[in-house]
Amino acid sequence: MIAVIKQGASEKQVASLMSWFQSRGLKTHLSEGEFQTIIGLIGDTSRIDVDLLQGLEIVESVKRISEPFKSANRKFHPKDTVVDAGGIKIGGGNFQVIAGPCSIESSEQILNIAQNVKESGAALLRGGAFKPRTSPYAFQGLRAEGIELLLEAKAKTGMPIVTEIMNAVHLPLFEHVDVIQVGARNMQNFELLKELGQVKKPILLKRGYANTLQELLMSAEYIMAEGNSDVILCERGIRTFETYTRNTLDLSAVPVLRELSHLPVIIDPSHAIGVSRFIKPMALAAVASGADGLLIEVHNDPQNAACDGAQSLTPDQFAELCVKIKKVREAVAES
Amino acid sequence: MIAVIKQGASEKQVASLMSWFQSRGLKTHLSEGEFQTIIGLIGDTSRIDVDLLQGLEIVESVKRISEPFKSANRKFHPKDTVVDAGGIKIGGGNFQVIAGPCSIESSEQILNIAQNVKESGAALLRGGAFKPRTSPYAFQGLRAEGIELLLEAKAKTGMPIVTEIMNAVHLPLFEHVDVIQVGARNMQNFELLKELGQVKKPILLKRGYANTLQELLMSAEYIMAEGNSDVILCERGIRTFETYTRNTLDLSAVPVLRELSHLPVIIDPSHAIGVSRFIKPMALAAVASGADGLLIEVHNDPQNAACDGAQSLTPDQFAELCVKIKKVREAVAES
Amino acid sequence: MIAVIKQGASEKQVASLMSWFQSRGLKTHLSEGEFQTIIGLIGDTSRIDVDLLQGLEIVESVKRISEPFKSANRKFHPKDTVVDAGGIKIGGGNFQVIAGPCSIESSEQILNIAQNVKESGAALLRGGAFKPRTSPYAFQGLRAEGIELLLEAKAKTGMPIVTEIMNAVHLPLFEHVDVIQVGARNMQNFELLKELGQVKKPILLKRGYANTLQELLMSAEYIMAEGNSDVILCERGIRTFETYTRNTLDLSAVPVLRELSHLPVIIDPSHAIGVSRFIKPMALAAVASGADGLLIEVHNDPQNAACDGAQSLTPDQFAELCVKIKKVREAVAES
Amino acid sequence: MIAVIKQGASEKQVASLMSWFQSRGLKTHLSEGEFQTIIGLIGDTSRIDVDLLQGLEIVESVKRISEPFKSANRKFHPKDTVVDAGGIKIGGGNFQVIAGPCSIESSEQILNIAQNVKESGAALLRGGAFKPRTSPYAFQGLRAEGIELLLEAKAKTGMPIVTEIMNAVHLPLFEHVDVIQVGARNMQNFELLKELGQVKKPILLKRGYANTLQELLMSAEYIMAEGNSDVILCERGIRTFETYTRNTLDLSAVPVLRELSHLPVIIDPSHAIGVSRFIKPMALAAVASGADGLLIEVHNDPQNAACDGAQSLTPDQFAELCVKIKKVREAVAES
Repeated sequence: MIAVIKQGASEKQVASLMSWFQSRGLKTHLSEGEFQTIIGLIGDTSRIDVDLLQGLEIVESVKRISEPFKSANRKFHPKDTVVDAGGIKIGGGNFQVIAGPCSIESSEQILNIAQNVKESGAALLRGGAFKPRTSPYAFQGLRAEGIELLLEAKAKTGMPIVTEIMNAVHLPLFEHVDVIQVGARNMQNFELLKELGQVKKPILLKRGYANTLQELLMSAEYIMAEGNSDVILCERGIRTFETYTRNTLDLSAVPVLRELSHLPVIIDPSHAIGVSRFIKPMALAAVASGADGLLIEVHNDPQNAACDGAQSLTPDQFAELCVKIKKVREAVAES
Repeated sequence: MIAVIKQGASEKQVASLMSWFQSRGLKTHLSEGEFQTIIGLIGDTSRIDVDLLQGLEIVESVKRISEPFKSANRKFHPKDTVVDAGGIKIGGGNFQVIAGPCSIESSEQILNIAQNVKESGAALLRGGAFKPRTSPYAFQGLRAEGIELLLEAKAKTGMPIVTEIMNAVHLPLFEHVDVIQVGARNMQNFELLKELGQVKKPILLKRGYANTLQELLMSAEYIMAEGNSDVILCERGIRTFETYTRNTLDLSAVPVLRELSHLPVIIDPSHAIGVSRFIKPMALAAVASGADGLLIEVHNDPQNAACDGAQSLTPDQFAELCVKIKKVREAVAES
Repeated sequence: MIAVIKQGASEKQVASLMSWFQSRGLKTHLSEGEFQTIIGLIGDTSRIDVDLLQGLEIVESVKRISEPFKSANRKFHPKDTVVDAGGIKIGGGNFQVIAGPCSIESSEQILNIAQNVKESGAALLRGGAFKPRTSPYAFQGLRAEGIELLLEAKAKTGMPIVTEIMNAVHLPLFEHVDVIQVGARNMQNFELLKELGQVKKPILLKRGYANTLQELLMSAEYIMAEGNSDVILCERGIRTFETYTRNTLDLSAVPVLRELSHLPVIIDPSHAIGVSRFIKPMALAAVASGADGLLIEVHNDPQNAACDGAQSLTPDQFAELCVKIKKVREAVAES
Repeated sequence: MIAVIKQGASEKQVASLMSWFQSRGLKTHLSEGEFQTIIGLIGDTSRIDVDLLQGLEIVESVKRISEPFKSANRKFHPKDTVVDAGGIKIGGGNFQVIAGPCSIESSEQILNIAQNVKESGAALLRGGAFKPRTSPYAFQGLRAEGIELLLEAKAKTGMPIVTEIMNAVHLPLFEHVDVIQVGARNMQNFELLKELGQVKKPILLKRGYANTLQELLMSAEYIMAEGNSDVILCERGIRTFETYTRNTLDLSAVPVLRELSHLPVIIDPSHAIGVSRFIKPMALAAVASGADGLLIEVHNDPQNAACDGAQSLTPDQFAELCVKIKKVREAVAES
């Protein structure tokens, strides 16, 4: 970490700042130039509050040199993490498609979709029981009942299941869920993340729609710091000025996250683009970019879906997509 | 609500869509032009899922005409809401300054600051006990102990207190807190909002840093829909491309929110700009824009503050600011 | 177009607004609901100023129904435009790679790179002579001399050439240039666009880094309205909150622009991501998304490039990429 | 400037990078830590291309320490610049209001408005002759004729005038214009900036709607580097996710620009918020924040304005605003 000192700071002020750093266990290195004086800090700076430094009278600016995340950092763990999701491996060369409806609506619906997507090649089944909605008047999901229906579908198809948690109080309901999803709006619900760090299940952590990749990794770090290192990172679209799409899919997340971290990275094109007829090109682009998996919304009857029908594929469209995914995977494979 | 139909949609498809709307209790009005066909919808469209409509094969786009919020809507409640915060009125012409440290650190610290800001004119005392931090390695607040220290300061100074909640499980600790704050990162933690809707205390709801004003009002609506209509809206800076400031204070929130809603609107310039030497101009600008109050961070020793010292005023700077605030209030008063 | 009228507007005010619309040649359609009154407008609304309407005392909001662009609109020109770029076809199923250095530096440099990229499969040669740089102290390009060197390389390799214009005064220098590029910062330099509308050459129009897709199409419309319909649209990354990459590549531009418009859409992953080791995954993703072409920076000696070396591939990396591009093209082809 | 070296870089690579810096006239300072190696660079780094460095194989990241602008930098010119705009001083404590219509429409219109705003206290008259419009089908201004009408109004009222240039070719028409405005969309039209650097008139430079404050200062630097140091900086709203306002006024620009630079800073609330009923609170907020002036749109008949009527005040509203501006100026004055 580097602190740039303002012109005009007195020697005494600089010395006092240096002792302050030293009292926090850091080595300091002073470099005085004609127009600027810089203090370099060596040691564990992850506990130094950049905002605090930035506000000191004599400090002009502060630059972090090393990333503030550790457990999620590839530098300290060069090998890809392979997450075991109910027997299915994700990451480290293992590519998986997770598919299912936005909301679980009935026993028939979820089972029917599960069987369909399994046949086409999906390895995991997703379905929403607890639904975060902008409006309190919109459908909020079947909640506990939805989880039961999802578990039934798991029992009948043998597919591991993924579903979202919105409140740690509901954790007992998730006992037989294979992967617990944290939605974009809860990416910085730190209380929830801490509790999920104590769970022995993989966590699928979605990037908030206005969060940086570093913030995503810091949220993963919250989970990992509590002892759970099975985190799957998921890019699901960021907010931009564009209005023709629901969000903007940021595929640069794939190579960047894979360089910064050892955790698997999957892509949710359905929420990102929000328009079913644009899912296929975006899903194939995600595969070509090197993602470790996809999260795709599939609904047997999108026009009557309880939510997000706009962005759901029909089982037939999904089957077609799976064929293409395989071809693109082969095309980009390192031979 | 208006649905624009794609060129080439068959009469049968349009008729089927119209019956679908009618089956949901809406009146429809068809208007056919040379290049476009439009279906107007009359009735309670707040339960219609715009995203779903947008995804239908024959629908080109959907436009909402009326706002999707009701309880927070000034159209249905023209008179300003005046919130009673532990005996202090906010809104409807009642302007208040809420001041205190970012984090509660010790009994002496919080009491000392409380006495100082009270003397300068602050009506409520703020202080963080539960602190949302991007990094799991940063100071997380004194938590339960912090609330106790804050209650002590309340007892000794008589000032009503404001502090942040991060988890509904902690509600019992907030029994004697006067105003419960929801932080920017929890603005769309809908489970928390629902539980706060059942509390009989004012809620200070901060706008998320990438949320629109309508989304802020929808989150207020979550609280109000459960029965708690004492919501104070707070703008605390939005994320932009600018890097010289922590966030960007959006003062247009004041006149816009006051037109759309009857709820009081206060401004937090400290978090918005994040640099103590810029707080004064931004605070005075907020007053000139017509805000119902300010939330200001004050710390007796910013350089040794446990967090956010960068953006804290000293008690002396705060006293000076209060004098200017009064002058600007008089300057903009309608005579 | 639809104008939503404020509650409380008098009948006289509404009638006066309706005559105002009629005096502008529009048919009006009044619809009165319990909580809202709406005026629908039928006719050529492309000349109505939405901002003006929005400001009228009695108008609450205004919604456009039809797109404000015409010549670029696929609705009125369903067939793909195929641009002829010096004998090379782009669009309508014709995929092309445009490659070359960010800046032209010397005769040897540009010729060497041209021969290399041609061999690997690039169809057009790009090179910057006029360089828009944020700093006046950064290298501004070889300007006129650069164009001469590019023309030499064209003569020796037979490759059509693409280069950027920054000032219409320089047009005479572009006489033998095959495709004229408009950079992101000039996307809304309307004076320049108008002059390029009178040129008989294809224009490669880059999206501004904070512009919407509709604004890009409106800028294409400026060129087309003057008579030049050979416009190639280019997405080159948008500005977001992310800092690990230079910009954020928005691949949803491909399917969305191809639906809205008949113009070819190409992708510039080099400027978008700005880091050479991330170009390959982003380029392949662009191909998988259905782009009509790629614009790739290639430099024989990136470490000593006059500008943007950070994002240039070496000729060998480019050759490798071209092999993969071909495979991904085959994988996504509709059979 | 600081270059952080990747783990695993060989000593030879580091040495080679250091000589490369030295060959560019910089002193280097190597600092090796356990997990990171850093090269500090001392000397004139304003010509070093950060993007190039960032792309080098062994470089992990690059941090600038000093600002890349010089002529506009307060560090090198501590005293406020006072611009003389046709005899009217702006900056250094001289606060001025510039007012007038968005577009010049007729001789009567501009003269009538000029007389009105002069009476209320405006010091300079503004009016658009060349109008940048997103749509080629929107009114483009009276162009040369507009400038003539503006000059007439200047002759009759004695007010100095401000109007926008879109093309350096039109410079001869601006001979008797007192202040030349560069619009937001041309803030990075570097060719235009260079030509305005050779003009002996003040330039009013508007911030682009997605540009940072540093980029604004770099554009000022383009003008100043050519010899024209009379630049007035203008914040006119940035693009955000908010849709209730046209743009979002960023008042933090005032204290930040005034700290970074010695140039005067004025605010255009009309374009920023785009809704006439919100102009007053935003204008007063701008005054309270310490701006050196305001740019306000005034139109005698907003409903029939050729453009931007939505955001124009009537002369009466403007007169009222001027009274309040004076009061707020007094309230915030340092006594």
